[in-house]
Amino acid sequence: MSVSTSSFPLNAWYAAAYDVEVRRNLLARTVCNQKLVLYRRGDGQVAALEDACWHRLMPLSLGRLEGDELVCGYHGLVYNSQGRCTHMPSQETLNPSACVRAYPVVEKHRFVWVWPGDPALADPASVPDMHWNDDPAWAGDGKMIRVACDYRLVVDNLMDLTHETFVHGSSIGNRAVAEAPFVATHGDRSATVTRWMENIDAPPFWAAQIRHARGYEGKVDRWQIIRFEGPCTVNIDVGVAEAGSGAVPRDGQPGDRSRGVNGYVLNTITPETETTCLYFWAFARNYCIGEQRLTHELREGVAGIFREDELVLEAQQRAIDERPGREFHNLNIDAGAMWARRLIEGMIAKERPAAARIPIRPEPTVRI
Amino acid sequence: MSVSTSSFPLNAWYAAAYDVEVRRNLLARTVCNQKLVLYRRGDGQVAALEDACWHRLMPLSLGRLEGDELVCGYHGLVYNSQGRCTHMPSQETLNPSACVRAYPVVEKHRFVWVWPGDPALADPASVPDMHWNDDPAWAGDGKMIRVACDYRLVVDNLMDLTHETFVHGSSIGNRAVAEAPFVATHGDRSATVTRWMENIDAPPFWAAQIRHARGYEGKVDRWQIIRFEGPCTVNIDVGVAEAGSGAVPRDGQPGDRSRGVNGYVLNTITPETETTCLYFWAFARNYCIGEQRLTHELREGVAGIFREDELVLEAQQRAIDERPGREFHNLNIDAGAMWARRLIEGMIAKERPAAARIPIRPEPTVRI
Amino acid sequence: MSVSTSSFPLNAWYAAAYDVEVRRNLLARTVCNQKLVLYRRGDGQVAALEDACWHRLMPLSLGRLEGDELVCGYHGLVYNSQGRCTHMPSQETLNPSACVRAYPVVEKHRFVWVWPGDPALADPASVPDMHWNDDPAWAGDGKMIRVACDYRLVVDNLMDLTHETFVHGSSIGNRAVAEAPFVATHGDRSATVTRWMENIDAPPFWAAQIRHARGYEGKVDRWQIIRFEGPCTVNIDVGVAEAGSGAVPRDGQPGDRSRGVNGYVLNTITPETETTCLYFWAFARNYCIGEQRLTHELREGVAGIFREDELVLEAQQRAIDERPGREFHNLNIDAGAMWARRLIEGMIAKERPAAARIPIRPEPTVRI
Repeated sequence: MSVSTSSFPLNAWYAAAYDVEVRRNLLARTVCNQKLVLYRRGDGQVAALEDACWHRLMPLSLGRLEGDELVCGYHGLVYNSQGRCTHMPSQETLNPSACVRAYPVVEKHRFVWVWPGDPALADPASVPDMHWNDDPAWAGDGKMIRVACDYRLVVDNLMDLTHETFVHGSSIGNRAVAEAPFVATHGDRSATVTRWMENIDAPPFWAAQIRHARGYEGKVDRWQIIRFEGPCTVNIDVGVAEAGSGAVPRDGQPGDRSRGVNGYVLNTITPETETTCLYFWAFARNYCIGEQRLTHELREGVAGIFREDELVLEAQQRAIDERPGREFHNLNIDAGAMWARRLIEGMIAKERPAAARIPIRPEPTVRI
Repeated sequence: MSVSTSSFPLNAWYAAAYDVEVRRNLLARTVCNQKLVLYRRGDGQVAALEDACWHRLMPLSLGRLEGDELVCGYHGLVYNSQGRCTHMPSQETLNPSACVRAYPVVEKHRFVWVWPGDPALADPASVPDMHWNDDPAWAGDGKMIRVACDYRLVVDNLMDLTHETFVHGSSIGNRAVAEAPFVATHGDRSATVTRWMENIDAPPFWAAQIRHARGYEGKVDRWQIIRFEGPCTVNIDVGVAEAGSGAVPRDGQPGDRSRGVNGYVLNTITPETETTCLYFWAFARNYCIGEQRLTHELREGVAGIFREDELVLEAQQRAIDERPGREFHNLNIDAGAMWARRLIEGMIAKERPAAARIPIRPEPTVRI
Repeated sequence: MSVSTSSFPLNAWYAAAYDVEVRRNLLARTVCNQKLVLYRRGDGQVAALEDACWHRLMPLSLGRLEGDELVCGYHGLVYNSQGRCTHMPSQETLNPSACVRAYPVVEKHRFVWVWPGDPALADPASVPDMHWNDDPAWAGDGKMIRVACDYRLVVDNLMDLTHETFVHGSSIGNRAVAEAPFVATHGDRSATVTRWMENIDAPPFWAAQIRHARGYEGKVDRWQIIRFEGPCTVNIDVGVAEAGSGAVPRDGQPGDRSRGVNGYVLNTITPETETTCLYFWAFARNYCIGEQRLTHELREGVAGIFREDELVLEAQQRAIDERPGREFHNLNIDAGAMWARRLIEGMIAKERPAAARIPIRPEPTVRI
């Protein structure tokens, strides 16, 4: 059933849409090279079917919804939300093989997740935790952008935030990020990069946040705790607190962030193809959560920052395309990205026929 | 001489242009992957030459006509309408091999037909009969559109009109078409699908025609007699008559259509490449033939219907391109299209070297 | 080090930019399939580096200049003008292999020349002579255009000026060019085509020049002395003089051009890829050299003529692409182009491993 690829696993949950995007009409999306049509049934459940009629391959997303069934826009074949054909024009007997693939779907934390691999393995409990996106103690919103690059370049980008200094100098970047030490750790399916910058000048974005929320204008302690969960989710715990107010964890004890402002940058990046992806993100905060204007302002502000990344990521993909076989080199700052890449490699390797499996290599060079 | 392809025969007449398109200037057209330049000579005959100068491959269509000769726009080589070079710059002696290919041409029934295969086999008598297009007892007009799909998808489309119900619901489609029984027959080079719908409500288009021509507003008997002639011509005898007025043939006797309105949808679809085609069509009628306004209105109305098909056909081609090797499945309604495909296959098979020929298979699955 | 190609040698100087194009910012250019970034250092020297960061391939041309060093716009790696990395974010020790390729550069005769092949062979003395472009006894100016064709098609075009009659009939072409005899000679790395047209009507362009500069309106002796220097420079000595005033060389003696007007069409065509090129040209004259308005007018006039060539060259390239494996045929007028092609072939052959070298064939058919 599964398409063999080398850059993404199929047995994983991928965000296919924001919850609000799926309504009582037909939405076409591509996930892991598979064309899907999504719609919401009358009972509110989301259906995800293969976007090609069994008969003549016409995209079903160009047809129409009739109750909970899909009518093909060419010859009128009808499919139910399990993908079974329930009506054919001019004939009484339906071919029992007439169906299109239905995908496992879970709606959770404001995203619609689909499973492009073996349905028997699709466990709803393994959807990545992005609860800040609909937790009433947090406020925020996000967007989806289509980026013309390998989704792993976005993961690389998020796992190393020193790029903020050079790409986002006018908002969240300053010299402190590029020069601060960090710690990288990892588990079976996750990798974490933790960076504390103590007693620094806040960059413009955070200076404005802490001034607005706490009326504070001095030096800050800043944190970035980046957590990757394979194959493509990266949640980043970010914020600043009054310098020396106890936010920094000491001796194994968590810090006290009560004199600070805290946000989560939530990212999940779904490969459409080997070289394009759907980048879903949100920014949630735990301060001034009733201020709708701030939610709006932050969403648009973060969108502007991500547009800067988009330019870089697409230029990088073009550079890769122009140099087939050229390898990346790694710096110390790439420790987190390298772990993320290895975990992805491991997930892909598990899907290969046993004979074709090779052990995950510990070399510092990342093949792309 | 012939280019080997798998989707169209070369030994066939193909419409390259409407008569009015070929004038005293140079028209570039692609037929069966071959680039042609067409022009009308002083005596009114049409010449069709290979569109590439013998010398440096410059498209001759970018040159100019001088009398009945073509002058290349780069170095001024001159060719006569048989494709022979008659002048070279700065030299007296002409290389005797200096010529470009000339194609057999016939102008008939308002189309300019060319023969891309072996000229020795080009019999003008085998041009498809589309006489309604210039018969004084019929009135009408048509257009040419370029569609980004395999020409055989257009043939499929025309051989099964149940799609009218779903694609053209606001004009010629209604439930009756999708549900009516039909009869499919075939000969050596043609296939026919006949559908009669008795005592039905006319769809909007036909209701307007019979009201205008006959002042009639009740139930009708409607017919669609689709005749395919290989490789790519489909003429459709269509119309409605007062229900029960005798239009339906009985006991081997033709019906009496005098209380009805009759039209012919004339279609010939020329492959440009494996995935693009030139779709020539006309609509001719035998009622109110002096009404120029009606001719104009019908041409634009039918053009609107064909634009609906164009969207479907191009979406279908993209779906095919995305799924190499995927096969079509067939329904009962595809009987006519399947015969058309087999007849095309047979024409192509005859052009293969004897050793490479395989018998026409009777399987119900159409490989694309 | 060198990319193996079949259509251009790598061990050669290629114009990458006009002098004025390279300033204190970053200019991206492609030469022989290699992406370069060019900039002018504080001391006025031009640096040319590989346009891809060692770390993650980000195009350095999207970064910024800091003094004489380049800062990558993604993670802030810094390179000096020799391509060595001098700074990495968050780490003290630099990987000694961290560098990007630096190209030999010479600025001469108003062009910035780069050497994409083996730097050990890059002898500044072998830059083609285009001194008319900055000689105070001559006045003129030029432009660069990007043409979507194999650079050798431009060389072919310049080596045979009979095309002026057909492509440039309204300016520099007339029947005389296509019919006049010519002499083609060649050396180890150059080929020359000489054409004299005695006692003819000047074409519109030259009639205007000699009237303006000399007040002369009668018959002229016209010359075109085309000199190719491998792999891609073509300088053309052109002009007209009063008919019979002694401009034509006789008995091995140079002619007296004092009753004439003389220009040089300077051309050097740099392959970007196999099918695109950067076409640098200038027109320099030795009359009315103080007239800035004339310089402006001639530059725009010649630009218009070259736009006519551009249309022809791109149409020719498309025709070639559509007919893989199709060969060109040659006429007598192609003697100069054939020699140029052979000299290019010889330069390419010298770069092949000895075992792969084949002798330059004397056949009259040019394979493309």
